[in-house]
Amino acid sequence: MLTDATHDPALKSWVTSANDGATDFPVQNLPYGRFRRAGTDEPWRIGVAIGDQVLDLKLAREQCPWGEPAHALLAPLADGDLTGFMQLGREAWRSLRAALSAALAEGSEQAPFLELCLLPQAQAEMTLPCRIGDYTDFYTGIHHAVTIGKLFRPDAPLLPNYQWVPIGYHGRASSIGLGGPIKRPNGQTKAPAAEAPSFGPCRKLDYELEVGAFVGRANAQGEPVPIDEAEDALFGLCLLNDWSARDIQAWEYQPLGPFLSKSFASSISPWIVTMDALAPYRRPFTRPAGDPQPLPYLDGAFNREAGAIEMTLEVWLQTAAMRAAGAPAVRLSQSNLTDAYWTWAQMLTHHSSNGCNLQPGDLLGSGTLSGARPGTYASLMELSSNGTQPLALPGGEQRTFLQDGDTATLRAHCQHPGAARIGLGEVSGTIIG
Amino acid sequence: MLTDATHDPALKSWVTSANDGATDFPVQNLPYGRFRRAGTDEPWRIGVAIGDQVLDLKLAREQCPWGEPAHALLAPLADGDLTGFMQLGREAWRSLRAALSAALAEGSEQAPFLELCLLPQAQAEMTLPCRIGDYTDFYTGIHHAVTIGKLFRPDAPLLPNYQWVPIGYHGRASSIGLGGPIKRPNGQTKAPAAEAPSFGPCRKLDYELEVGAFVGRANAQGEPVPIDEAEDALFGLCLLNDWSARDIQAWEYQPLGPFLSKSFASSISPWIVTMDALAPYRRPFTRPAGDPQPLPYLDGAFNREAGAIEMTLEVWLQTAAMRAAGAPAVRLSQSNLTDAYWTWAQMLTHHSSNGCNLQPGDLLGSGTLSGARPGTYASLMELSSNGTQPLALPGGEQRTFLQDGDTATLRAHCQHPGAARIGLGEVSGTIIG
Repeated sequence: MLTDATHDPALKSWVTSANDGATDFPVQNLPYGRFRRAGTDEPWRIGVAIGDQVLDLKLAREQCPWGEPAHALLAPLADGDLTGFMQLGREAWRSLRAALSAALAEGSEQAPFLELCLLPQAQAEMTLPCRIGDYTDFYTGIHHAVTIGKLFRPDAPLLPNYQWVPIGYHGRASSIGLGGPIKRPNGQTKAPAAEAPSFGPCRKLDYELEVGAFVGRANAQGEPVPIDEAEDALFGLCLLNDWSARDIQAWEYQPLGPFLSKSFASSISPWIVTMDALAPYRRPFTRPAGDPQPLPYLDGAFNREAGAIEMTLEVWLQTAAMRAAGAPAVRLSQSNLTDAYWTWAQMLTHHSSNGCNLQPGDLLGSGTLSGARPGTYASLMELSSNGTQPLALPGGEQRTFLQDGDTATLRAHCQHPGAARIGLGEVSGTIIG
Repeated sequence: MLTDATHDPALKSWVTSANDGATDFPVQNLPYGRFRRAGTDEPWRIGVAIGDQVLDLKLAREQCPWGEPAHALLAPLADGDLTGFMQLGREAWRSLRAALSAALAEGSEQAPFLELCLLPQAQAEMTLPCRIGDYTDFYTGIHHAVTIGKLFRPDAPLLPNYQWVPIGYHGRASSIGLGGPIKRPNGQTKAPAAEAPSFGPCRKLDYELEVGAFVGRANAQGEPVPIDEAEDALFGLCLLNDWSARDIQAWEYQPLGPFLSKSFASSISPWIVTMDALAPYRRPFTRPAGDPQPLPYLDGAFNREAGAIEMTLEVWLQTAAMRAAGAPAVRLSQSNLTDAYWTWAQMLTHHSSNGCNLQPGDLLGSGTLSGARPGTYASLMELSSNGTQPLALPGGEQRTFLQDGDTATLRAHCQHPGAARIGLGEVSGTIIG
């Protein structure tokens, strides 16, 4: 049984904004983030999102009576140290989740104390939830791989290793942020007919809709994580925009892969939704008929039964002209995390299978999660067929790639009869010249 | 004038082991490392290597009279915080270098105090000199690129972008260590004729001789470092063994580059030799006749005049059988850092040219630094033509790739008439099954 009382869809919170059925953060979610009161230089604190509020875990530990082990488990969080909490392991995560759920539920005797520990999210400034030691980006969106592959290799869009290896590469950790202004990068590009490359602003700037997973439990160097233990090493998920400079990438990427075409910026959503919160949305992991089965080191019972996660993923775009006209953002795509060809457990086990040591706070990216049809394409590269077929926007504008002033917003939520709707929140970035 | 009194080859130290002409660490060098007394769990301390000793900078600051600014500049180092010192910038680095040189020189009045702050290197346990936030590996060894390229593309060994772009990729930071036992990684491999890949121990395990550079000064995200300022952002050099699993790499690397074939372990030498110490060995950066000149953003006056560094690089191998027979290690190759096709300044400027933020403690790898002839090939992949031509070793053994029990040692030194011989020290790793 994956779910427990914390997932009960009938559960309500005394924080009334958590109960409207539309919020990403009902009492069944309880994601962690790092915040401070906007406009101050107070130390960053760990909080839990509940409705449109943040529960300040430093204040909450100080101001509210807690039983054990909750009081002890709150200690690293009260110190602002989310990775310290991650290191305590899954039983600790579940134990505190149960305590926070009870404390925030309607009728809780802790409510009078915790009411004093809330800050409206609108008054909070967010920062990265923890230090990201290493960032690895995978390539599990098979439809994305096929659609992109067809642009360059119509006869063999999928490379021979794709269905065997969870393809991934090391990404740049230092330039991961929470979005906001994204400066258009410069770089080397070369037109096919040009004699020599030139250096200047990227002309094929794109977003990529991905989901990110935070590693919670470390493995020692030389000690791989077996597939059946991989879930216990995964802390939670966020949204990830893997901003991409397609023209720079095309010229630089042979033979060692994408580098400056990605490292100028990556953006994540500020709240980590725990794997425990996602329990009601676990689904069997299956392969299309005729595809090879995973090698034994990537094949485990839990992974087969519940390795996948059902989650709706969306990209929204608002151009400067739309903003000036007061027009809302338009949705460019809707896809699903079940479009991933590999599970998080498989990614983590594969990553550690050579003995590579993963650490709490490491971030894994899913790769671009597109579906197989245009309305599910999770990048402009796909939607515009590499710039050859402009996308029509409301108001008469067109787009091949991102223009200055464009705001791309990623959103994700899980919704299913018999379970509470929860979401990852959102991450937005606006291109500046 | 690049050099100053600290580089005077006639300078001697009152630490007599620094004066034998063979040490890597004469008073003209003064590299930084992090150590503690072996067999203790004392806090790690920053030290400076001098001859066969380590000068403990915490003790040195406490026990010895210093003028200003040396006393202030030693503060982060006394706290064990090398990146804190890096952030002070080049003028600070040079100022402390001058103070340490004077303090360790023959006739120094500080000698009686500093004698009490020395620990024999043989009694020191070393660790990484600082936290490595991000690690980027370049591919500047053009002879390596050509030799490897010929194995797979005899007609076009060098890809079209190579002479324009300082090719690089993000590496794994968490698995960087100082050598010692290196566990043979497992991974997916696929023989060309096989129907499906299999998972098991790497059978083409290799070393790669590289030089590493530590970034000292940060640039803010979105603010590239101009080529004429790049030298001021470079703190110093070390040796880097980019252990490589060739069979895993061949199967996994398309289309996103090397991943698990590299991330199981990388090894660096423990001492950072500062760029300031290397001043006597700076050389003009030139391109072979007929090769394209660097694009303007990678072309600067200092870079042309002194962008290159003359440094002899060596790989030594001792097998288990040689060790058992009491036979010494054999030198497999000797090459030079001038074999790099791009300078450190060009690598750093290119890396930041898209706005990527570099941070103190980030590590840049040169890529495998081979020459054009077999005796200069800095990997077994080259020496054995990808395993097809075994290398004969003294004692009758042969090698294509590394076997369990093999110890690979990298060494580097600078030697030239009119300058003191200095070295990077060494890094050794022994393969275990």
